[in-house]
Amino acid sequence: MLTGLSAFPLTPVTPSGVDEKGFIRLLARLTAAKVDSIGALGSTGSYIYLTRQQRERIAALAVEHAEGIPVMICIGAVATAEVLLLAEDAQRAGASALLLPPVSYQRLNDDEVFGLFETVARSASVPICLYDNPGTTHFTFTPELYGRIAALPGVQSIKIPGVAAQPDRALAQINALRAALPQGVSLGVSGDAFAALGLNAGCDLWYSVCGGLFPQTAKALTTAAAQGDRDRVTELSARLEPLWELYRKHGGSIRVMAAAAGILGLTDPDCLPRPLLPLSTADRAEVAAVIAALELA
Amino acid sequence: MLTGLSAFPLTPVTPSGVDEKGFIRLLARLTAAKVDSIGALGSTGSYIYLTRQQRERIAALAVEHAEGIPVMICIGAVATAEVLLLAEDAQRAGASALLLPPVSYQRLNDDEVFGLFETVARSASVPICLYDNPGTTHFTFTPELYGRIAALPGVQSIKIPGVAAQPDRALAQINALRAALPQGVSLGVSGDAFAALGLNAGCDLWYSVCGGLFPQTAKALTTAAAQGDRDRVTELSARLEPLWELYRKHGGSIRVMAAAAGILGLTDPDCLPRPLLPLSTADRAEVAAVIAALELA
Repeated sequence: MLTGLSAFPLTPVTPSGVDEKGFIRLLARLTAAKVDSIGALGSTGSYIYLTRQQRERIAALAVEHAEGIPVMICIGAVATAEVLLLAEDAQRAGASALLLPPVSYQRLNDDEVFGLFETVARSASVPICLYDNPGTTHFTFTPELYGRIAALPGVQSIKIPGVAAQPDRALAQINALRAALPQGVSLGVSGDAFAALGLNAGCDLWYSVCGGLFPQTAKALTTAAAQGDRDRVTELSARLEPLWELYRKHGGSIRVMAAAAGILGLTDPDCLPRPLLPLSTADRAEVAAVIAALELA
Repeated sequence: MLTGLSAFPLTPVTPSGVDEKGFIRLLARLTAAKVDSIGALGSTGSYIYLTRQQRERIAALAVEHAEGIPVMICIGAVATAEVLLLAEDAQRAGASALLLPPVSYQRLNDDEVFGLFETVARSASVPICLYDNPGTTHFTFTPELYGRIAALPGVQSIKIPGVAAQPDRALAQINALRAALPQGVSLGVSGDAFAALGLNAGCDLWYSVCGGLFPQTAKALTTAAAQGDRDRVTELSARLEPLWELYRKHGGSIRVMAAAAGILGLTDPDCLPRPLLPLSTADRAEVAAVIAALELA
């Protein structure tokens, strides 16, 4: 399942709780575009801001509305005990894979992060994807630790937080990672602005925030990558530069995607869990202008 | 209440849950030493690793065993909705004050952090202490944001994460903060190694991890500070340098304090919530040697 486009939708939240209808509308776009997999409750899916009960419900809705597309559920939490409960919930809901970030509060060391993955791998019965996102988890993996964790039974993919900005360096980086990992462990690029570089450097798939809202747009990239058309991959990403620039301006993708979902009429204009705040009116207008200019729909 | 020594005990955790007897043993040391306040469920108290139910129980135990000493309870969580529930729980348990850190996952902006404090201040009926600890929350306050938040009704103290390492710069820093804050808002230094510098620069109190396990030792510093004996404050902290060095070596105080509590026979040798791991045997021996050399007890 871990190839092509893995689309990470928002989980829209209103003051009264999760907006289930909005979430289902987002899922419908992903199934219509026939994305290769759905990553529900990722960082952009606000997993960390939701209760265990809300996460269980969203996992069940994702599987129910996925029309057979495999669903990966993020089970991140600071406490290992909570991660284990979330893993049970996600598997009971029908998740095809589990996405596990080393969410930290106290700074974690390598043995602690390895211990987390070892504990979860021991009990999980579906594949695990290592989620590396230092911008939110504040933990930095080494290739050596990737290797230790990827050798655990069930660990089948690594979601890397981007690649070097030069194509030749990105290629060297991915080749070095492959050498450190057991065969069969897939490498997925994330950080949407790095998708083209990562795919052209040989990543197996794109764990995509853009694809969670604009799946056709994102799929054009992974399709071009599957066809080996590297120039087209580069060109398609370059065209999206105004969107990547909005991510940079607003400290990540989540506030931009939440604004975009509201602009498209898929969710309330304010669909972020507090303490996160929606973009200002002026910033929302800028998002709307980029959507129009890039003909995102 | 927010003067002198505010002692922050560990919350010992074993595989079967919170070690309530161990926690009560730690509290007994604080009441015997007549600390000025108790900060339960701080960072070293592992608040973020515990469930809402566990936190409610610890808050109740802290108040019950505090022998009338005011208890401040940390209500930090990533989601504002959860923080509000924790605030209710803590107040119902009898907390005299609430400690509120801007725990972050997505990077927060100033308006989002202000919104969090505004929301909590609106509903709380006991004083709130702003908890600034960028090492764990990954949010950096500006003096301007301190000022906005400290102007909210109920915000009565700021727990700062340390001061400049030069006495004259520390003094200038504290004076500048005072100028940015409403009168009557206390400033408490934390980061144990900075306690002497902070107290000598005019901080009103020490939010102390050391005091959570070694209250007599910590109280000697705050007592000397209250007597205006700056040289003695500096001397007492300098004597504890081997302890501060252990904190630095182990990425913070929690693993060192957990080891020390085990060495003193107050808790199990392994009393940290996973994914945190206890120190190695060799590192524990080093902690034991420092405890013996400094005659900590």
